Amino acid sequence: MSKASTATKRLLLGRPFRSDTLGHTLLPKRIALPVFASDAMSSVAYAPQEIFLVLSVAGLSAYTYTPWIGLAVALVMVVVVASYRQNVHAYPSGGGDYEVATTNLGPTAGLTVGSALLVDYVLTVAVSIASAAENIGSAVPFVQTHKVLFCVVAIVLLTSINLRGLRESGTAFAIPTYAFIVGMVVMLAWGFLRVYVFGDDIHSETAGYEIKAEQDHLIGIAFVFLIARAFSSGCAALTGVEAISNGVPAFQKPKSRNAATTLLLLGSISIVLLMGIILLAKEIGVKYVSDPARDLLGAPEGYEQKSLIAQIAHAVFGGFTPGFYFVTVVTALILVLAANTAFNGFPVLGSVLAQDRYLPRQLHTRGDRLAFSNGILFLAAAAIAFIVAFGAEVTALIQLYIVGVFVSFTLSQIGMVKHWTRHLKTERDPNARARMIRSRIINTIGLLMTGSVLIIVLITKFLAGAWIAIVAMVAIFGLMKLIHRHYASVQAELDNSDYEAVLPSRTHSIVLVSTLHLPSRRALAFARATRPDKLEAVTVNVDDRDTRKLVAQWEDSDITVPLKVIASPYREVTRPVIDYVRRLRRESPRDVVTVFIPEYVVGHWWEQILHNQSALRLKGRLLFEPGVMVTSVPWQLSSSDRRKRDRTYIAPGDTRRGVGTLPGERIEPL
Amino acid sequence: MSKASTATKRLLLGRPFRSDTLGHTLLPKRIALPVFASDAMSSVAYAPQEIFLVLSVAGLSAYTYTPWIGLAVALVMVVVVASYRQNVHAYPSGGGDYEVATTNLGPTAGLTVGSALLVDYVLTVAVSIASAAENIGSAVPFVQTHKVLFCVVAIVLLTSINLRGLRESGTAFAIPTYAFIVGMVVMLAWGFLRVYVFGDDIHSETAGYEIKAEQDHLIGIAFVFLIARAFSSGCAALTGVEAISNGVPAFQKPKSRNAATTLLLLGSISIVLLMGIILLAKEIGVKYVSDPARDLLGAPEGYEQKSLIAQIAHAVFGGFTPGFYFVTVVTALILVLAANTAFNGFPVLGSVLAQDRYLPRQLHTRGDRLAFSNGILFLAAAAIAFIVAFGAEVTALIQLYIVGVFVSFTLSQIGMVKHWTRHLKTERDPNARARMIRSRIINTIGLLMTGSVLIIVLITKFLAGAWIAIVAMVAIFGLMKLIHRHYASVQAELDNSDYEAVLPSRTHSIVLVSTLHLPSRRALAFARATRPDKLEAVTVNVDDRDTRKLVAQWEDSDITVPLKVIASPYREVTRPVIDYVRRLRRESPRDVVTVFIPEYVVGHWWEQILHNQSALRLKGRLLFEPGVMVTSVPWQLSSSDRRKRDRTYIAPGDTRRGVGTLPGERIEPL
Repeated sequence: MSKASTATKRLLLGRPFRSDTLGHTLLPKRIALPVFASDAMSSVAYAPQEIFLVLSVAGLSAYTYTPWIGLAVALVMVVVVASYRQNVHAYPSGGGDYEVATTNLGPTAGLTVGSALLVDYVLTVAVSIASAAENIGSAVPFVQTHKVLFCVVAIVLLTSINLRGLRESGTAFAIPTYAFIVGMVVMLAWGFLRVYVFGDDIHSETAGYEIKAEQDHLIGIAFVFLIARAFSSGCAALTGVEAISNGVPAFQKPKSRNAATTLLLLGSISIVLLMGIILLAKEIGVKYVSDPARDLLGAPEGYEQKSLIAQIAHAVFGGFTPGFYFVTVVTALILVLAANTAFNGFPVLGSVLAQDRYLPRQLHTRGDRLAFSNGILFLAAAAIAFIVAFGAEVTALIQLYIVGVFVSFTLSQIGMVKHWTRHLKTERDPNARARMIRSRIINTIGLLMTGSVLIIVLITKFLAGAWIAIVAMVAIFGLMKLIHRHYASVQAELDNSDYEAVLPSRTHSIVLVSTLHLPSRRALAFARATRPDKLEAVTVNVDDRDTRKLVAQWEDSDITVPLKVIASPYREVTRPVIDYVRRLRRESPRDVVTVFIPEYVVGHWWEQILHNQSALRLKGRLLFEPGVMVTSVPWQLSSSDRRKRDRTYIAPGDTRRGVGTLPGERIEPL
Repeated sequence: MSKASTATKRLLLGRPFRSDTLGHTLLPKRIALPVFASDAMSSVAYAPQEIFLVLSVAGLSAYTYTPWIGLAVALVMVVVVASYRQNVHAYPSGGGDYEVATTNLGPTAGLTVGSALLVDYVLTVAVSIASAAENIGSAVPFVQTHKVLFCVVAIVLLTSINLRGLRESGTAFAIPTYAFIVGMVVMLAWGFLRVYVFGDDIHSETAGYEIKAEQDHLIGIAFVFLIARAFSSGCAALTGVEAISNGVPAFQKPKSRNAATTLLLLGSISIVLLMGIILLAKEIGVKYVSDPARDLLGAPEGYEQKSLIAQIAHAVFGGFTPGFYFVTVVTALILVLAANTAFNGFPVLGSVLAQDRYLPRQLHTRGDRLAFSNGILFLAAAAIAFIVAFGAEVTALIQLYIVGVFVSFTLSQIGMVKHWTRHLKTERDPNARARMIRSRIINTIGLLMTGSVLIIVLITKFLAGAWIAIVAMVAIFGLMKLIHRHYASVQAELDNSDYEAVLPSRTHSIVLVSTLHLPSRRALAFARATRPDKLEAVTVNVDDRDTRKLVAQWEDSDITVPLKVIASPYREVTRPVIDYVRRLRRESPRDVVTVFIPEYVVGHWWEQILHNQSALRLKGRLLFEPGVMVTSVPWQLSSSDRRKRDRTYIAPGDTRRGVGTLPGERIEPL
């Protein structure tokens, strides 16, 4: 082949780099908001409740601090949103915190963020589903008493939906998310209207009970600690805010600007809902304690405590039960949606980590069904383990939750500060410099804020459970380091190996046959078609009778390829073939030996057990011999047809990553 | 290639059909006896005890029948030994009952025998180990109270020894077997001497206790039923007698004569031991009941009942404890040896069944380590399941045991009767006819005897547990039928397929590359060495950056093979390659397409997870396309060396099958 033919190298099928330009269905802001916001927004379903719960330890009087804690959380939210608006502009590629940390702080920081996020995805599923169970449980007593069962069933359902390949659509996200926003806004507005405008005297069902404070009259450090813990728990409202920074490529142009606007919208809605819920709950006397039988004085025997949102809905809508049910259902729905985003995000993050060789390489191929399945199954198993271990208690799970989020926030902000500093060194345009300096200030504030929250979270939650999340992160970090090291050592081995690209002088082909059936004949015909320098058929004599029959058939047939019988004193197949191939290699070391193996192709896994096992094992062993190629010549049995009819698979998370089929485009089934 | 070259077809490596003529170490009778007799002889360790146990239900008076039951069992033994001496002469190939039934009664009868024997091997392990535990437990109280644990540990030990490939030797069999015979004979002789010659008044430790009969004064049918049950249980002494008929090829010449003599020897020793044990036990007042706390009046609180043999040894040797310990230890040893024979026999039977396509074909290759491992693991798991389910109680397990043996005995004898009848039709020599008629008479008596015992066993034991064994046999029978049917349908499909042996007109080779590293270069070089009509390299664009880099490298390199980039809109590897190959096939249907896949060869299973996964999946899918060959071009990473150092493997059961290495012959490690 001449150098000229390299011109054909560029011959591409279809348009070049089709995956970049084709199949994008870009999201307008009104769809992007629900697609990326369900995780963040759903956290207002449990964050305020956790604030009330923590403070109940010090008795009812501590509830006076709830608005202030809410404000502190809202402040953190403002800062984080402002910071991530800078991220979105600086890194529009959708790499998110992992990319920011890796680029600016090096691979170790990136890997730390990666581990934190992987653990966090697991906890997102656990916390969201547990909280959904709690909200549904407020309306359906059966769920209340069988929370763990409900959660496990829900996770199994989500898993099977995602394993089958859920085709995401903007609508699927939009309806529950907007329904949740509408439900919440209506509930809050109606509630405040009734209280402040109509002057109705509405009370939650727990308003009449007294909290039995575990620790009455907390003072000094202990009280500060309690407030800090309540604040930490409230910061759960921030989880999921970073999702938009992973989704910039899916936005319509101007991508970064639209993403930043959507982020602002998300932050505003979250703050409104958070503050509204806290203020209204306090107004109507909601109480939320960890053990109502012990801590709620005046409650009737066997009282089942409703979730905070359910208590508000119950009080606000009074006799109008559809309102109460609507709010509980949409709250549960958005929580399930939030859990589902983890099912999409986890394998996507896995593919990014695999690209950087921190996870098995095959996870990199995003469209690959099996790679995704493994990720989904791992996520589901881990989430179920957490659910069972913590009895589906939101309060217990939330102790583990936000460490990872804030590790990721903080490292990302450090990275952004470095990013701007680096760019300022080269940038000369005063306007651009001014913008960069402004951005750096915002990210510095973000860093100080998220760093402080991280420290507070670590102090107040370490012993309560955060250590478990940290241990998990460290373990995943270590495992990914080991995988990376393995790939690096393979790379080094390849770099150091000598390989002269001289062509092997001749090819010597052998066809393995056991009986003279059609698969063997096809293998012989294919082997002859490759016109090797030497071609022979080889059979291993594991059974005298069979071998004699084969030799007789061979002599009677029209086959001109010579048949060689290899003795097998121990009636095995592998060793004699290996020995024979080694002998060929010794005799002419510059030849390449090709071993043709006829194989049945079957449609069922159990047929696989009944066929090819010796061939597979032999193939595996032959590959250990240098200078040997192994060629499978398939014979398709009729049962193999069913495998061709496998349905088309859509990878989860496509919509969020801006990947999709164009209208009318059809994927041809394999 | 000309017709003349078919002369080289016969070129064999080494001597022709080496596995037949080489590597046999034939056994003299003195070694053959212990090798094949441990199973049969060990059953006298539990058979007499079961007779005593069953009769104890009717109280002490029923013990007067023990000698008569013993005689009945001995009579069956005489008949069975005489019958099998005919088998051994008629079928010297070692196929045993399976071969006799298949040849004379057709495949269904053969398969019935096969299923019965498979179940029986499992029960041999369970019963032998449970009985060993009982005997050891008579000397070591800890084993008595932890029988299940002891049995499970023992089976796991046996399994691991056999998985590692136990090199059998005649000595390993001879020492425990002869020690058992000597121990028993000395014990019995000394016991009878003391009683009848010295006139010592020796008593077993249970002699002073009274049996509380469950059913006093049994009369009529009920009593006959009890006697029949005792007889059925006693027939457990016959298990393992058929083993010699599987081992004829391992005997020194004249094989059949020597095997028949050994059979006679085995039968004689078994009868002597059986009758000796029963008579002496009765003489010294041994009692054996199912629940000593309930059924033994006068026994102290917490009395642990010793096995029957231990009771005899204890009484006979009196103060001489080494004698007592010697007898218990050799009894346990021969029982473990008997269990071990099942570990050898099970995979061997599996390989025979696989040869006839009743089990996955790869089990046929006897020397194959993996095939044997699977058989051994299955046997061990099933035996452990039985041990645990029945609490390692010999009495419970023995209810399941002998159905299979007698199914196999009976079918084998029917087969032998037909065998002689068939031969008598053609035989004209009066002497030969006389011998055949004599043999047929013996086998007919054998048939009547074993058939009657089978009916008695079925009647007396069906509800007590034999039904479980029967259900297991039916299930295995059905499974093997299904496997056979599958193979037959594949055969039919191949027979009905049209295949013109015309050579494909041209070969079109494609080499899959992802990066331009050494494995890819080797694959390209090897592919070029096969001189295809058309050769091109193909890469799937799952990542733009990577693909651009590859294209740039390719253009800078000295490679003259053109590189084709395939678009992958969904970032997957498999589908675009399949589509491309299909397009090639459509364009020139008579070409054969060869896909070269560079593969890493690694040494650890976890490395396998980190490499080749996409390649393996692609390979699996490509095989479904007709007219496509898949060639693996291996690149051996340094870690792959460790796999080459795997130690040599000796298949279990070689000694019994007459297969072994000649002195000084060495197996080269793979």
